[in-house]
Amino acid sequence: AGTSLGGTAYANEEVMKLQKDPNNWAMQLGDYSGKRYSTLDQITTQNVKNLKVDWSFSTGVLRGHEGGPLVIGDVMYVHTPFPNIVYALSIKDKGKILWKYEPRQDPNVIPVMCCDTVNRGVTYADGKIFFGQADNTVVALDAKTGKEVWKAQNGDASKGETLTANPIVVKDKLLVGISGGEFGVRGHLTAYNIKDGKQVWRAYSTGPDKDVMIDPQKTTMLGKPIGDRDLGVSTWNGDEWKIGGGTTWGWYTYDPELNLVYYGTGNPGTWNPAQRAKDGKREGSDNKWSMSIFARDADTGAVKWVFQKTPFDEWDYDGVNENILADITVKGKPVKALVNFDRNGFGYTLDRVTGELLVAEKYDPAVNWATHVDMKTGRPAVVDKFSTFANGTDTNSEGICPAALGSKDQQPASFSPDTGMFYVPTNHICMDYEPFEVSYSAGQPYVGATLSMYPAPNSHGGMGNFIAFDATTGKIVWSKPEPFAVWSGALTTKGGVGFYGTLEGFLVAVDLKDGKELYRFKTPSGIIGNINTFVADGKQHIAVLSGIGGWAGIGLAAGLNDPQAGLGAVGAHASLGQYTNLGGVLTVFTLPD
Amino acid sequence: AGTSLGGTAYANEEVMKLQKDPNNWAMQLGDYSGKRYSTLDQITTQNVKNLKVDWSFSTGVLRGHEGGPLVIGDVMYVHTPFPNIVYALSIKDKGKILWKYEPRQDPNVIPVMCCDTVNRGVTYADGKIFFGQADNTVVALDAKTGKEVWKAQNGDASKGETLTANPIVVKDKLLVGISGGEFGVRGHLTAYNIKDGKQVWRAYSTGPDKDVMIDPQKTTMLGKPIGDRDLGVSTWNGDEWKIGGGTTWGWYTYDPELNLVYYGTGNPGTWNPAQRAKDGKREGSDNKWSMSIFARDADTGAVKWVFQKTPFDEWDYDGVNENILADITVKGKPVKALVNFDRNGFGYTLDRVTGELLVAEKYDPAVNWATHVDMKTGRPAVVDKFSTFANGTDTNSEGICPAALGSKDQQPASFSPDTGMFYVPTNHICMDYEPFEVSYSAGQPYVGATLSMYPAPNSHGGMGNFIAFDATTGKIVWSKPEPFAVWSGALTTKGGVGFYGTLEGFLVAVDLKDGKELYRFKTPSGIIGNINTFVADGKQHIAVLSGIGGWAGIGLAAGLNDPQAGLGAVGAHASLGQYTNLGGVLTVFTLPD
Ligand SMILES: O=C(O)c1cc(C(=O)O)c2c(n1)C(=O)C(=O)c1cc(C(=O)O)[nH]c1-2
Ligand SMILES: O=C(O)c1cc(C(=O)O)c2c(n1)C(=O)C(=O)c1cc(C(=O)O)[nH]c1-2
Repeated sequence: AGTSLGGTAYANEEVMKLQKDPNNWAMQLGDYSGKRYSTLDQITTQNVKNLKVDWSFSTGVLRGHEGGPLVIGDVMYVHTPFPNIVYALSIKDKGKILWKYEPRQDPNVIPVMCCDTVNRGVTYADGKIFFGQADNTVVALDAKTGKEVWKAQNGDASKGETLTANPIVVKDKLLVGISGGEFGVRGHLTAYNIKDGKQVWRAYSTGPDKDVMIDPQKTTMLGKPIGDRDLGVSTWNGDEWKIGGGTTWGWYTYDPELNLVYYGTGNPGTWNPAQRAKDGKREGSDNKWSMSIFARDADTGAVKWVFQKTPFDEWDYDGVNENILADITVKGKPVKALVNFDRNGFGYTLDRVTGELLVAEKYDPAVNWATHVDMKTGRPAVVDKFSTFANGTDTNSEGICPAALGSKDQQPASFSPDTGMFYVPTNHICMDYEPFEVSYSAGQPYVGATLSMYPAPNSHGGMGNFIAFDATTGKIVWSKPEPFAVWSGALTTKGGVGFYGTLEGFLVAVDLKDGKELYRFKTPSGIIGNINTFVADGKQHIAVLSGIGGWAGIGLAAGLNDPQAGLGAVGAHASLGQYTNLGGVLTVFTLPD
Repeated sequence: AGTSLGGTAYANEEVMKLQKDPNNWAMQLGDYSGKRYSTLDQITTQNVKNLKVDWSFSTGVLRGHEGGPLVIGDVMYVHTPFPNIVYALSIKDKGKILWKYEPRQDPNVIPVMCCDTVNRGVTYADGKIFFGQADNTVVALDAKTGKEVWKAQNGDASKGETLTANPIVVKDKLLVGISGGEFGVRGHLTAYNIKDGKQVWRAYSTGPDKDVMIDPQKTTMLGKPIGDRDLGVSTWNGDEWKIGGGTTWGWYTYDPELNLVYYGTGNPGTWNPAQRAKDGKREGSDNKWSMSIFARDADTGAVKWVFQKTPFDEWDYDGVNENILADITVKGKPVKALVNFDRNGFGYTLDRVTGELLVAEKYDPAVNWATHVDMKTGRPAVVDKFSTFANGTDTNSEGICPAALGSKDQQPASFSPDTGMFYVPTNHICMDYEPFEVSYSAGQPYVGATLSMYPAPNSHGGMGNFIAFDATTGKIVWSKPEPFAVWSGALTTKGGVGFYGTLEGFLVAVDLKDGKELYRFKTPSGIIGNINTFVADGKQHIAVLSGIGGWAGIGLAAGLNDPQAGLGAVGAHASLGQYTNLGGVLTVFTLPD
């Protein structure tokens, strides 16, 4: 649309080239496939214990810092949560500020951000830095000068719409999601032209096929055409689909060969399932296409295939987690796989060409709300006792695992082609869930449930594990317990070392083989950012943003004390205050000379 | 007064014992003498290059962090600027929070703080942690639990009174100063009983002898009794002494053998000297006892001797800088010396027993407002051209060195008994100064001058130097240039290594012998805190608070852009924004195993 083929090819090839060079960390997830794996191997299981801080940089902003710095050549791009400052730093000058971009935003957006004022980072392509502001402004900056190239408006904060996701560039388009599942926002993914910010297409998560960009004859589900029309309308109670959630605030991955973009949609609103049930029944009330993985054509937005993980959600198992694209061997067959560690506690392996389901197994033994996933239908077998719908409005369903935080939330996992394993930062938390009747009012919370959260009972007492998972068989290979939810993105490296951060603020390095801890360093604040790696001055470096917050750290970030505040997350993490305080700091590590 | 002799002796001996043990860092200035010197020698000129960060801790507060952590045994006490949070941290648990004390203060105090919302730290004695809040509340906490033991009110923010200084405990008393020289506050030092917070005495800086606690027959000046009565009244224009400044916001030192407490008083208000001149003349208008060093009996507050450094100030050369007590040899004679690096650019060596003046020399070659200090009278020989009084109200006096920031501000220097030298963090900044008529209104700025500041011309282009100074001769031994004012407190060690911080955020280690740089590490934010050292786990550690701000960093701290804002400090330090952002972080260093 308007862009020359030349331009199109350029942006794409440039991004591909940058992400293939391990000296850079050119995308938030490392590359289009979302592996968060680096071929760098200077830092090894032998020498990682000598890691030392090379330099550090305060962002000047408190509250939760998600995502991480991009590294393109010798420039590092660092972002902050609201007010969404972007810095370009000179790496060789230990973080000297080349430019700083500070948007002016109405702070009234803060109260409509469900889970802290987070932002998952900036994107580089075509000489520009792209990012979304909390207030739904999408911004393109000149990467050299920090000057605005264009701005676009992706939503309306007065309706509870916000923006926390990391957009990605595919060819000549910037793909942008939206948040607000707790405010009755109708989710969508929108493509903007990277040259001028003109909207190219917008694909909704709910509603008629036309809006969702489904062709029921062509779009497949579990390998077969959907057939039925407008399921995005008919599987909802009345007009609920119009305020139905399915927001798109997670991560986006892309397969350049298939030209498909993959992402997940969030929970249906409200959290009170009874209000979303057609004729008061679960049957027929899938609330499509909330809780689904979409595979869309990157040029047109058309849905190639779709897979709903948690039809008719009753637990806020928001299905936005990243879809990692890895070529693995399942039951003796090499497959172009897509692996997703869903909030609902199941690790899904799909054929990313066809959307067929290959494996679906629990990646945390605590998961109890469903016994298993039916491999024919892809549906979880819900345990009645934990059905908040069956138990009914105003009834407290107790002991549900995982909690609404999920066995994993947005914190991205990593895949090491060397070990063939996935390394997953997980939550080990259960909940009580009591739905209540709620009515919709634009810009007001549309939640409809009261939650309490606590460490998974009869376990190690902690609230997190860092695990290695075999997605070909669905087995946990090893599991390393942590006192708090592991809310940071993982990194794996050819050096055989895996990295993650903890809510207390530790950067932890482990042996990918067996999970043995090799190094632990206390950064200034709790880590909910994602670890990455790059080369400067010929040496491998590790970088991470500290800054406690996010949903797990909402108590500290927003100063909440009531255990049921923060949508129920405050109680579980109350003792975090004994370990850490707010404060955004980038810490950069390397080996001694 | 009310306390048993036993109790009195206890607090004193305990403090003395703690400060003699180099495993601790028991006072902000290291010990009563203010040397900021440690006998620790594990870190040497040879191995300091291997220093690495052991752990770090975000305070959760932005704006300027002055002072530094106290270390008593295995507990570290860390404070923040407004809102003046105090943390007790477990050192062996890498900063785990044992307790946190967060006062509630009216933020209306912030606009009456002249030079950022700084606080120079907490004090330990008698099982308690003492500190002053910005709003003039003096607080004693149980050091074990963080629970309040008592509170006292030391001033009134609605009159422009604030509190930034680090109080000290001498025997059974806590000595507390006051800020507000730019608001017409009349300075004083107040003694509180450490057991219950009852006020024991209050000694004013201006006014009748009774208020100042001067006995003109006994109190000496340059070794002789003052003679004249009530100079604190008679050297002022009318009632100006009542709003005359002489605030006491600097550091306090103490000689236990002499039982004398030493501290300096600030500038007289207003900054427009014409308003303070009796009969429009400089003669007779000393504005006593602003700009003076007081030696007071620690029990009674009575003044043993007093020395005025800058009579009739015309440049805001606020005389509060620390008085370091060192036994040195001057002209072949061993003396119990007091050494003071005054804002006015002269380094003074006095006999601390008698207050006699031994040496007074410029410690920055740029100093030009006076040619020298008359050793008979102690008076600086003012250069007419730089007399803002002679030039007159509404006349801009240009090229005055140093600027009002002084050749050194509050950032404390250090003395190494090994080298016999003083190590001084200095400013290398000059100014234009234009006085204007101002009228007093309680709680409103009472400044009366417009200032511009810039790097000292015809020099190295930078705005700071870290110097070694021989106070026995008044000679600069070496000088290490820095791009910005060196606004952090220095540390010297038996290992032969000196430390200071820079406004860009670097911790710098130098060879005390020759100033050669041995190590430089970029902490998260600009350093205006003071470096210290202690032992944990048998290993020497170095600790420093980062967090840009203070007067030098006021532009960043308060978000000011006008070059003449922040009392003229913003312009000179405008480019700091290219290096650093706000953010309070403690960084703790040690050598690798
Ligand atoms: O429904 C939504 O639109 C929405 C948005 C967000 C967000 O944008 O951060 C979160 C969630 N939901 C959510 O359910 C959730 O668990 C969550 C955690 C976090 C976080 O950053 O820690 N954000 C969000
Ligand atoms: O006159 C006063 O009462 C007063 C108070 C303070 C303070 O309390 O911080 C400063 C000053 N003056 C001052 O002149 C000055 O240069 C200064 C620097 C700083 C700083 O912390 O960086 N405070 C102050």
